[in-house]
Amino acid sequence: MLALVLDNSLVRLQRGRDRPLSGDGLVRVRTRIGGICNTDLELARGYMGFEGVLGHEFVGEALDGQLAGARVVGGINFSCHDCATCRGGNPRHCPRRTVLGIQGADGVFAEEFLIPERNLSLVPDGVSDEQAVFTEPLAAACQLVAQLAGEVPPTALVMGDGKLGLLLAQVLAANACRVELVGRHLDKLGWLRDSGVSLVEELQQGKTWPLVVEATGSREGLEAALQVTSPRGTLVLKTTVEGSHELNLAPVVINEITILGSRCGAFEPALELLERGLVQTDPMIGGRYGLDDGEKAFERAACRGAGKILIEVG
Amino acid sequence: MLALVLDNSLVRLQRGRDRPLSGDGLVRVRTRIGGICNTDLELARGYMGFEGVLGHEFVGEALDGQLAGARVVGGINFSCHDCATCRGGNPRHCPRRTVLGIQGADGVFAEEFLIPERNLSLVPDGVSDEQAVFTEPLAAACQLVAQLAGEVPPTALVMGDGKLGLLLAQVLAANACRVELVGRHLDKLGWLRDSGVSLVEELQQGKTWPLVVEATGSREGLEAALQVTSPRGTLVLKTTVEGSHELNLAPVVINEITILGSRCGAFEPALELLERGLVQTDPMIGGRYGLDDGEKAFERAACRGAGKILIEVG
Repeated sequence: MLALVLDNSLVRLQRGRDRPLSGDGLVRVRTRIGGICNTDLELARGYMGFEGVLGHEFVGEALDGQLAGARVVGGINFSCHDCATCRGGNPRHCPRRTVLGIQGADGVFAEEFLIPERNLSLVPDGVSDEQAVFTEPLAAACQLVAQLAGEVPPTALVMGDGKLGLLLAQVLAANACRVELVGRHLDKLGWLRDSGVSLVEELQQGKTWPLVVEATGSREGLEAALQVTSPRGTLVLKTTVEGSHELNLAPVVINEITILGSRCGAFEPALELLERGLVQTDPMIGGRYGLDDGEKAFERAACRGAGKILIEVG
Repeated sequence: MLALVLDNSLVRLQRGRDRPLSGDGLVRVRTRIGGICNTDLELARGYMGFEGVLGHEFVGEALDGQLAGARVVGGINFSCHDCATCRGGNPRHCPRRTVLGIQGADGVFAEEFLIPERNLSLVPDGVSDEQAVFTEPLAAACQLVAQLAGEVPPTALVMGDGKLGLLLAQVLAANACRVELVGRHLDKLGWLRDSGVSLVEELQQGKTWPLVVEATGSREGLEAALQVTSPRGTLVLKTTVEGSHELNLAPVVINEITILGSRCGAFEPALELLERGLVQTDPMIGGRYGLDDGEKAFERAACRGAGKILIEVG
């Protein structure tokens, strides 16, 4: 089959790769659309030392098991469900886990791939393929609301107008939060106002927010974010930056700030937001490529402000 | 009167300093005992640019107001009680605040000092002066439990056997938590076992804790603490280190760790722990000096492992 693989730090199209074999709780899924995530770009730059088929954002058709024939999306962590962490209710943090297209498991930028059957969710009829492919990153955005345990403050600042920032802003707005988003490419983001998000070119001197989401992925972003978090407020870290930060943490102690690291989330809340039309994803799509144009898709995705690049497989 | 002042980065004894005048909500307190805190040592090294009478840990006798004649301890933040932060329920974070012996207000290492009457708490009869002088740092330790909103996990690791670490370990143990304390001077800390705290010379490879308290005050401490915090666990920052840290924050996101900055706390829980004998403070006392020996007291307090140095005023 056709697959987009990372091999020796090079993203390349591979023809004639063996189709995967199901079994051992793993079922085959035929990819319909995959989405390129910033993590994919970081993997290509050597993060995690991954080699194999790339991709973890997908909507597809289950080929085996009880969901055979159905449209599905799926969680990326392949957990053992047996260790203390899994039994303690945190299977997404299983220390023995492999991760779809990220760590020890081939990903979705191929005609077919394997995933644990229990990881799959059905896509509701009212959600299109092009919406459903956003489920995984949207679930990661929803995780923030889950971590706040329902206590979403009345105002929030999202820093960064990248893909994750746009999803986070919409998720918070859908949770009755007055959200301001600060970024560098606001001219193309007028549509966000329909989701209740205000756009801010520059931060007002001295203004602080009880909830600040750092989604710039830059080293400077974090220090700036600390400065605008209210005393006893929460600063959310959503993006991983490779390497060390030079960071003055005294404000964390003095202002009793909570820094919340947030990663993957459950799919149900994300699918519900898509079904209810509370999150717009169409304006975020920056391009569509066939799998055989996958190398070009990665080049395009690496451009600043490219938006979500989709790989249409079948 | 006699006072220990910080003047041009020098701690010196001043004789004939004017006694403070009460009024405007401020009452006079006669210091009985003051305690030297690491923050005092940092102030002496130039932190915050403070000048004036040092000291914020005290037990004293109120000289004015409704508590005149009573034994008192008191909160160190002089808040406006009028701004949005104060009205929002966080007066300890008032942006207009001054802080006793730390920022814009003379402290307690003098025969008398001023403090807002509303900041004072009565010392229960069963609590000695030498216990009561620990109320302020103990309240800071109790604040951690308040921030965890009653959800103290079953196990915790306290890193650092300084004064704050010893109090934090005891407070957690008093809250039904199995606490391990790792430090460099454990030979003198056998008494902690009576408070239910286990002493650990070296961390076991790969072991993690759902709650880790960083109380070493060192740059390396924080990175090490991140490594031993369980996925979805909480890392508490209790100590301010001047300057920037070089820090890799990727584990915060990947393991969804919560970093909790924690500073001052309410006095009531601390006084209750002292009254119920659940926290031992006597073994923590490293020396007693008169106010006229205050300079020597500061020299001693700056020595590694000195314990809590008390200044007995009257």
